[in-house]
Amino acid sequence: MFALTAALCIGSLGANAQVKEDFVTSPNAQPGKQYPMVNSDRCVRVKVNAPEAKSVKLDIGGVRYDLVKGEDGQWIGESAPQDEGFHYYQLVIDGGNVPDPSSLYYYGTSRWGSGIDVPAADQDFYQLKNVPQGQIRELYYWSEYNETMRHCYVYTPYDYDYNLTKRYPVLYLQHGGGEDEHGWAQQGKTGIILDNLIAEGKALPFIVVMDNGTWTSFKRADGSSLNMGPRRQGAGMNLPEDWTEGFRNTLIQDIVPMIDRNFRTIADKDHRALAGLSMGGMETKEIGLRRPDVFGWLGIFSGGTISKEEADAAAGFRKNNRLTFVSYGSREVEGGRQGGDPKVLTDELNASGTKAVYYVSDQTAHEWQTWRRSLYQFAQLLWK
Amino acid sequence: MFALTAALCIGSLGANAQVKEDFVTSPNAQPGKQYPMVNSDRCVRVKVNAPEAKSVKLDIGGVRYDLVKGEDGQWIGESAPQDEGFHYYQLVIDGGNVPDPSSLYYYGTSRWGSGIDVPAADQDFYQLKNVPQGQIRELYYWSEYNETMRHCYVYTPYDYDYNLTKRYPVLYLQHGGGEDEHGWAQQGKTGIILDNLIAEGKALPFIVVMDNGTWTSFKRADGSSLNMGPRRQGAGMNLPEDWTEGFRNTLIQDIVPMIDRNFRTIADKDHRALAGLSMGGMETKEIGLRRPDVFGWLGIFSGGTISKEEADAAAGFRKNNRLTFVSYGSREVEGGRQGGDPKVLTDELNASGTKAVYYVSDQTAHEWQTWRRSLYQFAQLLWK
Repeated sequence: MFALTAALCIGSLGANAQVKEDFVTSPNAQPGKQYPMVNSDRCVRVKVNAPEAKSVKLDIGGVRYDLVKGEDGQWIGESAPQDEGFHYYQLVIDGGNVPDPSSLYYYGTSRWGSGIDVPAADQDFYQLKNVPQGQIRELYYWSEYNETMRHCYVYTPYDYDYNLTKRYPVLYLQHGGGEDEHGWAQQGKTGIILDNLIAEGKALPFIVVMDNGTWTSFKRADGSSLNMGPRRQGAGMNLPEDWTEGFRNTLIQDIVPMIDRNFRTIADKDHRALAGLSMGGMETKEIGLRRPDVFGWLGIFSGGTISKEEADAAAGFRKNNRLTFVSYGSREVEGGRQGGDPKVLTDELNASGTKAVYYVSDQTAHEWQTWRRSLYQFAQLLWK
Repeated sequence: MFALTAALCIGSLGANAQVKEDFVTSPNAQPGKQYPMVNSDRCVRVKVNAPEAKSVKLDIGGVRYDLVKGEDGQWIGESAPQDEGFHYYQLVIDGGNVPDPSSLYYYGTSRWGSGIDVPAADQDFYQLKNVPQGQIRELYYWSEYNETMRHCYVYTPYDYDYNLTKRYPVLYLQHGGGEDEHGWAQQGKTGIILDNLIAEGKALPFIVVMDNGTWTSFKRADGSSLNMGPRRQGAGMNLPEDWTEGFRNTLIQDIVPMIDRNFRTIADKDHRALAGLSMGGMETKEIGLRRPDVFGWLGIFSGGTISKEEADAAAGFRKNNRLTFVSYGSREVEGGRQGGDPKVLTDELNASGTKAVYYVSDQTAHEWQTWRRSLYQFAQLLWK
């Protein structure tokens, strides 16, 4: 892979005759801006004005590429090819990490900053189309448990404001660490993905709630603050016992009742799903095992697996769970994973009596294309 | 004013013993960030990491302030006091204009970039409170006139999803030049302002539509592109005859019918208002004079006036118009304005038989605090 990368796109070494010069303005350029641009090899090219800077770099995909300054004071350069889909990135101007002034901004990696979509062979499923449109609603609401106003987004499908007696199932869809309630609505393209699936008859219409699962902001049941420290995920995190307590209590005591009061929901576990990516997937697993009487459908995207032993140990899980969906990007699992092969574990769960589906997104890593694809797959299985 | 400014806040001259050291993190800092900060004198303090930079400036209120680099490579400094309310700003790192990596971002001055709220004596009216909450919905829709999908935000008041047979008046609320449909929803705080007014019984519940009035993106009636060039406003713009044609046709042929189809509106001119700031105010005037049969209530915020002569010359205006509201920031009018004293003109309009109200926002300029206050005043007059 690396040799191919070096051959295709050697922007960091200066003048490069091998970059395919079919760059087009990316969908993530700001209105009226030409940059950032992407080419058909999924290289990203940026341009920024910093006439007195000594050094400007493009920081994307874990690599920093030196940009080259032109006579006009504008710095320009491009990356190696990126995986398909969406990537956070930034510029580094004389050692300072800054957003690209030309790109749209997204909240992730613990900051509002640049993000960019490179072409994907399957990108059609998240393109805005002239199909019946749902709406994404922005809500503020009082959380008694946290004694503060909170903020979330709620997707309602196209027929929600027409069929005024129809009631809908609900998916609670959670972001990852360093992200927030904007993630699924914006870079996740949840509304577009679901509008397209529903229009194609591949998914049943349902409501999606996108709230903030960041655990540092929650209280314990005794009112003390649940501060978890740095938001890192994965094996090796020194997580306290019951680390989802704060979000779980907020979700079950405040968010779900608020949604059931304000929207025409079918308010039972057979019509309530919980899913999430990364930290959101970890939360889904923990909350799903503890409260299968609340959430009957689970989607764990790049956030772990449920073994048959864990399913047996969780009271009411076998009886109540309708589906456990587990997904990863292929690059996340190709070397094997600590804790066991997620496909094996999921197949065992399925064989032992709980419907379980395993999905791998091809040639993507711990990134948003994996999770858009996971939502696309999961949404087609819900409520059926 | 300038002497007072210099005395209060001399950040650009380095160490300053006179800056009131009661800085607090602004509401526009990103989650978990300490900066940017504001003090009770309405000075803005920023901090940014750029260890190899030679020069970093804070650019706000038309002034560039030199920041000072500490040993840790972090640059820090503050502005002079700003007017009350919201201000766009940016950093300049070695000659390159960039967003502040620590602030939230807003679309204005033709870019997504930093914005900050400094304290205002009247800020209570746009604070999020635990009152019955409306929703701001994000919609995509097909525009036949422009043959493309378009994007807007729609505010519905708290009882919209409860009173399923109740119908509502609609305000079409437009942004200024270099802004877009995000403006009123985000930095404008439209949802919060209206939720508070409605909860206090000072405004009747109504729907607000926030769409994109940027004229370079529209077609003429003959299908040719209506490209107006650089987006500057004010006297001296070389505007073509009928420069609002593209947006006006989009609004009347596509947006209004789409809203009337998808929301429970009262679809007549007595229950349809048009208002806007700056370029949006200019559009309001032009469209309001041409189509008083569509929009019975007009709000022109920092965008011009309607003289009694213009009212007489506009067919159907005197018969149909229910209110013409004209507002400015005090700093915009204190030197007089080309075209005549807007208060005199508005009073004359009122005396000549069309209800007209003139409002001045105290000690603000051509900026968002003027327009938040204008909306606050205008909303209380609507439909009454």
